[in-house]
Amino acid sequence: MNRVSELFGIKYPIIQGGMVWCSGWKLASAVSNSGALGLIGSGSMYPNVLREHIIKCKNATNKPFGVNLPLLYTDIDEHISIIIKEKIKIVFTSAGSPKKYTSILKKEGIKVVHVVSSLKFAEKSKEAGVDAIVAEGFEAGGHNGKNQTTTLCLIPNVAKNIDLPVIAAGGIASGSSMLAAFSLGAEGVQIGTRFAVCRESSSHERFKNYIFNSNEGDTELTLKELTPVRLLKNDFYQKIKKAYSRHASKEELINILGRGRAKKGIFQGDLVEGELEIGQISAMVNKMESASEIIEDVISEFKFKKEKIQNSSF
Amino acid sequence: MNRVSELFGIKYPIIQGGMVWCSGWKLASAVSNSGALGLIGSGSMYPNVLREHIIKCKNATNKPFGVNLPLLYTDIDEHISIIIKEKIKIVFTSAGSPKKYTSILKKEGIKVVHVVSSLKFAEKSKEAGVDAIVAEGFEAGGHNGKNQTTTLCLIPNVAKNIDLPVIAAGGIASGSSMLAAFSLGAEGVQIGTRFAVCRESSSHERFKNYIFNSNEGDTELTLKELTPVRLLKNDFYQKIKKAYSRHASKEELINILGRGRAKKGIFQGDLVEGELEIGQISAMVNKMESASEIIEDVISEFKFKKEKIQNSSF
Repeated sequence: MNRVSELFGIKYPIIQGGMVWCSGWKLASAVSNSGALGLIGSGSMYPNVLREHIIKCKNATNKPFGVNLPLLYTDIDEHISIIIKEKIKIVFTSAGSPKKYTSILKKEGIKVVHVVSSLKFAEKSKEAGVDAIVAEGFEAGGHNGKNQTTTLCLIPNVAKNIDLPVIAAGGIASGSSMLAAFSLGAEGVQIGTRFAVCRESSSHERFKNYIFNSNEGDTELTLKELTPVRLLKNDFYQKIKKAYSRHASKEELINILGRGRAKKGIFQGDLVEGELEIGQISAMVNKMESASEIIEDVISEFKFKKEKIQNSSF
Repeated sequence: MNRVSELFGIKYPIIQGGMVWCSGWKLASAVSNSGALGLIGSGSMYPNVLREHIIKCKNATNKPFGVNLPLLYTDIDEHISIIIKEKIKIVFTSAGSPKKYTSILKKEGIKVVHVVSSLKFAEKSKEAGVDAIVAEGFEAGGHNGKNQTTTLCLIPNVAKNIDLPVIAAGGIASGSSMLAAFSLGAEGVQIGTRFAVCRESSSHERFKNYIFNSNEGDTELTLKELTPVRLLKNDFYQKIKKAYSRHASKEELINILGRGRAKKGIFQGDLVEGELEIGQISAMVNKMESASEIIEDVISEFKFKKEKIQNSSF
């Protein structure tokens, strides 16, 4: 037990990132049933879809699970009222200011964790009253901060300056990276990429296979003028790159991006036209596993490496 | 003892990065005298200056020290002949292909370590016959790779695939980050930033103070079209940024950069017009220390954190 596992009432201080088009009730319940914390990713769900996933998740597990809530989402108020009505006990907020919504959720007895990419946002989250912080580095998949601070540089700075449990995210997919994060002062890890392509993820089979075969250097953080996002360098990415090389305006970039690209790529498996959001550590994820296999492997590698380091001559 | 400390015959598997305008004989000998490995940074030295620093370093320490050698340096052949004549036993090569020079150095009984930013370059270095690899992530200061792979993602991939001792660099400035690197499979760490601003560094007092007062988000990797370089966002950086925003050509960027910017900033302390190369972890370096104080602190924190993790409830 540590502060993170106690806060959520879970066995292992591992959180499955609430990822668009990947983490519905199937993934969240599988993770929670395996002793970690599953999160439903509400960022790709209409309010009625979110309600359905929450109800199905409750039927699939009696362990704690939560909802990830991007605060800039258009249906945010409806999402929040569903979360409250359905008596969700854990909410991870991201992409937006925690100021307004943290107190609303806390009043309902909900544990609130905010995802940040910088020390400054961690400080603001603490002021807003959150229970814990996810500090997510530059190597993470999907939407990302502007400072480009990596997990290795971000975690010790947040852990040193903020007296709240810190959950490390970005670049973490194994027991050894979990041990690295704990060395830096984290008390939990949030794993995205490896769960995004596991058996229970709702992402498309083609998306999963593309990632199993990808290598180091195959992702890039781009579209910094809109919202920075890390994705695989597929044909759609090359389109963006060409637009940059002809100095496209922000409006042109918005047009090229269009709507529904992440759904197209991740959920529908369009590897050409889709936006394939994933983290740098995807280079090391190369086989299909179940959520429970991932959690068992992370925990056993964590323990093995801990012992190995303890017994090492240096 | 481990493979890295054995390879160099040193007490602690810590290497001081060979940094332009920072690491002359004073810093290198101070580091070596404290049980780690000091490197003379030849990238900012004319051949006769390099010879002088080697001779002074020999007089200042009887412990092993080495030379860092950027392979694209114009005077490379003269540098190599000085290194051989002066019977230097350890060379860290960087910025260029290790293919040609590794065998020349190895024939003289010199231990050769190459600095890489990707798994692909690590494989090429192994083929070239190096004794160990420095794997340096995106967060590192100064010149950097194109893939932008962070230390947390790079180290486990290189350690898993290359059967050579791996020295982690980029974002490492403390005992806890050293422990993190070891958790990921490294057997040594190369520390740049913290040594760049220590008492024995030849960098300018104003440069050091500027860094003591800098915060997270104050560095940026830029000039990707020339050679990617991480630097502080001072006035000179703003000039580059403006050039980008008006879509300056590569030639214009080369012109703006001009010559001698790093010397101006780091060595002469021109904080306005100089190129202030430093790593992301500079945000956490905020006081003047001697090289020996740094090494003692890193080692004692490493041991303390190792024990703390061992005894932690998770």
